[in-house]
Amino acid sequence: MKNIHIIGLGLLGGSFALALRKAKPELKFTGFDASTKNLEDALTLGMIDQSSEEIPQDTDVVILATPVDTLDSLLLKAMDKVGDQTLVIDFGSTKESLCKSVADHPKRAQFLAGHPIAGTEYSGPKAAKEDLLDKKVFIICEMEKTDVHLKGMAYDIFEALNMKLRFMDPEEHDKQLAFVSHLSHISSFMLGKTVLDKMQDDKNIFDMAGSGFASTVRLAKSSPAMWAPIMVTNKENILESLDAYIQNLQSFRNKISEENGTELLEEMNGINKIGDILDLGK
Amino acid sequence: MKNIHIIGLGLLGGSFALALRKAKPELKFTGFDASTKNLEDALTLGMIDQSSEEIPQDTDVVILATPVDTLDSLLLKAMDKVGDQTLVIDFGSTKESLCKSVADHPKRAQFLAGHPIAGTEYSGPKAAKEDLLDKKVFIICEMEKTDVHLKGMAYDIFEALNMKLRFMDPEEHDKQLAFVSHLSHISSFMLGKTVLDKMQDDKNIFDMAGSGFASTVRLAKSSPAMWAPIMVTNKENILESLDAYIQNLQSFRNKISEENGTELLEEMNGINKIGDILDLGK
Repeated sequence: MKNIHIIGLGLLGGSFALALRKAKPELKFTGFDASTKNLEDALTLGMIDQSSEEIPQDTDVVILATPVDTLDSLLLKAMDKVGDQTLVIDFGSTKESLCKSVADHPKRAQFLAGHPIAGTEYSGPKAAKEDLLDKKVFIICEMEKTDVHLKGMAYDIFEALNMKLRFMDPEEHDKQLAFVSHLSHISSFMLGKTVLDKMQDDKNIFDMAGSGFASTVRLAKSSPAMWAPIMVTNKENILESLDAYIQNLQSFRNKISEENGTELLEEMNGINKIGDILDLGK
Repeated sequence: MKNIHIIGLGLLGGSFALALRKAKPELKFTGFDASTKNLEDALTLGMIDQSSEEIPQDTDVVILATPVDTLDSLLLKAMDKVGDQTLVIDFGSTKESLCKSVADHPKRAQFLAGHPIAGTEYSGPKAAKEDLLDKKVFIICEMEKTDVHLKGMAYDIFEALNMKLRFMDPEEHDKQLAFVSHLSHISSFMLGKTVLDKMQDDKNIFDMAGSGFASTVRLAKSSPAMWAPIMVTNKENILESLDAYIQNLQSFRNKISEENGTELLEEMNGINKIGDILDLGK
């Protein structure tokens, strides 16, 4: 393994480049980003050695780290062009539709469907951090469909980055992520909107915001160009999680309206156990 | 000012004690907590010198740091008993109802209605931290109703703790806090409930949770004994904020359902500005 090519040099692609360059300084990196500014920044920040819109023929591993609405066509285009010793890995936040798109491609075995569970509310190469992926989970879907030899390169890379591999079906992945990631982003964006709307008649409202508000609204700073396509691509699962959320809010609303302190207390007591569950995961 | 008495030795009362003891080591602290365990912990952790269920006659400042459903009666009882040189300060998260309760009390001028904008998702004296209040906002309501001389002691204390004083009406306080604090807690508790419910048919769902989920659900670990009374006491304002939030979620839900990527993108772009607003506040 000598040459890596990264398409999409934002937060995730950029962090991947920084970490892998440090872990394996002998590798050469090329890459591309649809934004000229991002591409220039990635070169300045030393994420890639050289920009290249085309995937160089001697590339061992191609990384696709772009918004999910661009992945289908980028992946199919890449698969058509790469030689038979090249592995293509995507970092997309939804997996079912992409796995279906590529299911019948003659080079399907050269593709690894991946998703690193890592990110921040910021975006672009300047937001990238060398340790963003360190010790994080990397989900691989349909691992049995990827060529064993090529998969070895992927394992080499993720081991070098200290990532923890998890294997699951694309359908299961998209369902779970709707609940533990996509829904959080919606709840956060809508919380931000609710308070911004209120600011129209009360412009000092943010003066009173403490660390709790900052924590719940943090994801409302996330990149819309990344998130709008996720909402559309994972529509069915997101609607299921969002409807359940709205129903829970309405039921809680009614308990407040009835001033039913006892039921409010019991309900929150039951939810408190999420603390133990999350702390276990650390 | 020599003697401080603290009723409620949890996260907030305990953190206040630790910080003020450090800033003014000459002061003597007594205190009480309805929980024997909390009271013992507070003594062990050196928050108070001595426990005392009654407010000692030579107390200069009484701090009430208990859940809001207990504040009315504790405050009126304290006001009835204290001598005419004692100041009583409360730390409650809602202010309108408490200020009304005490409005006609003959010793009204000996009360300062306060609210430190500080906390974590943990509770009890063991969760207390010496720096919890450092550089945080302390809201004072109806400051004109407190005796000038007694108020001087409060200013001394909050200056020693590096707190930033803000002044506002109790009605305005409760309205703003509903949006920037109480609503965040509800959104977080209900997010936790939605994922916990999902865990019934998918027990590994939390394995996929990243830092974004942890951030949005953090407040679901908060103390129900503190929060259930806030929901009931600030019902009208919370329902206003919660209804606006649910409406925003439903409208966003419909855009997802219609796969209206353009509108989703525009809406999230508009909300992104919350990042600048929050960063300005730092």
